[in-house]
Amino acid sequence: MFCLMLLACVLFKLGVSLMEERLISKAVIGRLPVYLRYLGELKDEGVEKISSKELSDLMHVTASQIRQDLNNFGGFGQQGYGYNVINLYNEIGRILGLDRRYNMILIGAGNLGSALSGYQSFENRGFSFKAIFDSNSKLVGGSIRNIPIMDINVMPAFLENNKIDIAVIAIPKTAAVSVAETLVKCGIRAIWNFSHVDLNVPEDVVVENVHLSESLMRLSYNFNERMKERSSYEGHKS
Amino acid sequence: MFCLMLLACVLFKLGVSLMEERLISKAVIGRLPVYLRYLGELKDEGVEKISSKELSDLMHVTASQIRQDLNNFGGFGQQGYGYNVINLYNEIGRILGLDRRYNMILIGAGNLGSALSGYQSFENRGFSFKAIFDSNSKLVGGSIRNIPIMDINVMPAFLENNKIDIAVIAIPKTAAVSVAETLVKCGIRAIWNFSHVDLNVPEDVVVENVHLSESLMRLSYNFNERMKERSSYEGHKS
Repeated sequence: MFCLMLLACVLFKLGVSLMEERLISKAVIGRLPVYLRYLGELKDEGVEKISSKELSDLMHVTASQIRQDLNNFGGFGQQGYGYNVINLYNEIGRILGLDRRYNMILIGAGNLGSALSGYQSFENRGFSFKAIFDSNSKLVGGSIRNIPIMDINVMPAFLENNKIDIAVIAIPKTAAVSVAETLVKCGIRAIWNFSHVDLNVPEDVVVENVHLSESLMRLSYNFNERMKERSSYEGHKS
Repeated sequence: MFCLMLLACVLFKLGVSLMEERLISKAVIGRLPVYLRYLGELKDEGVEKISSKELSDLMHVTASQIRQDLNNFGGFGQQGYGYNVINLYNEIGRILGLDRRYNMILIGAGNLGSALSGYQSFENRGFSFKAIFDSNSKLVGGSIRNIPIMDINVMPAFLENNKIDIAVIAIPKTAAVSVAETLVKCGIRAIWNFSHVDLNVPEDVVVENVHLSESLMRLSYNFNERMKERSSYEGHKS
C-alpha cells in the first residue's frame, strides 16, 4: 500500500514537472541564451560557483526572477551554495538543444548571407553551414569560408541527398515565400527567416523571424518616447 | 459649476489617456510594426478600408487582440465601418516615430555593416546613414552606397559637427563596449546594437539589441521541442 502511494506520488511529480516543462513561457526561453552568455563568460574566467544574487547583479535582473526562471527546469541551485557555473552552463545548453550539431543551408549569398555564413561563433556552437544557394550566376560556383555557393535550382536535389536541419533565408521578400514552400516540400522543419515577410508554412515547421526593420522601428518608438519624457521634464523644471 | 465639472472630466480623461499611452506594453509596441507592414501592403493594393475581422484573418491573430492593441492609442476604428487603411497606416507610423527623419551612423564596415547600410528600405522609411566608421585602414576612404567610410578615430569630431540621432554598432563584441561609451560621451541617445554583448550605457540612452546567436538558439530550442512532441506522438501511435 505504501509502495503504491509512493509510486503515485512519483508519477504525479513527474507529470507536473513534464507539464511545467511544456508550459514554459516564450519570455523564459528568450532569457535562457542570455543566462548562457553570462555563464559562458564566468566559465571562461574560471569562476566555479555563483549565487543568484551575484548573477542578478551581473545581469541587471532580480535574483527572484533568476530563481523563478531556473525553477522551470528543476532549479539546479543548492540552498546556501548557489549555482555550479559549469553544470548550469551545460544544463542550459542542453535545454536549448546545444548538445548536438545542426546542419544548415543558407539561401542568399548577398551581404547579409555573407555575414551570417562568416560567423565562426555559430560553427563553434554546433551550427554548421553545408551549402549556400543563390540565383545569381555570378556568385554560383564560388564559395564563402569554404562553403560552396550553388544554383538555387539544385537545392531540392541537394536536400534529398543531405540531411539538413535548418534553412536560413536571407533573400528579398519577393522570392522568400516560394523558397520557403520549396524547403518545406523538401522536408525542412526549421527556418531562420531574415526576409521581411511572414512565411506561409505548415504548423509543424518552426520559424524564427529576424525582421530588422521592425527592430529599428521599436528603437525609433522608444527613442521618441524618451525624448518626449525629457522635454516634458525640462518643461516642468523651467 | 457645470463648467468646472466638465473641465474636471476632460482633465481626468486626458490624464487617463496619457497614463494609458505610458503603460503600453512591450508586446503591443512589438506588434505595431507588424500592423504597419500589413497595412502598407493593403495600401499598395489600393484597399481603402478593412474590418478587424479581415485584418485578423490576414495576420493570423484574433480580431479582439487587434481591437485591444489599437484601443491603446485611441482606437481609430468606426463601429460598422472598420478601419480606414491609409489613416491607420499613417497613425501607426506616427506612433512609431516614422513621421520624421533620422540621421544615423554605422560603426563597422564588415559584411553585416555592408548589409545594413545597403538596405534601401531603411532610407525609404526615413533612416539615413550619414557616415560609416571602421578601424580597418584598407576600408577607410572607401564608401558603401555613396556613404563614406571614415576612420573610427574621427568619429567624435564628426559627431560634434553633425546632428546624428542613431548609432548602429556592427563590430565584434570586444570593441563594442568602449565604442558605445564614446558614442554616449559624444551625445548619442539611441543605439542599435548588433554586437553580442550588453552595452553599459546610462538609463536615458535607448538601446535596441539584435543578438543573432540568441535568435538561433531560440530556433534550436523550438525545433527540438517540436521533434520531441513528434516522436512522442509517433510513439503513442505505434
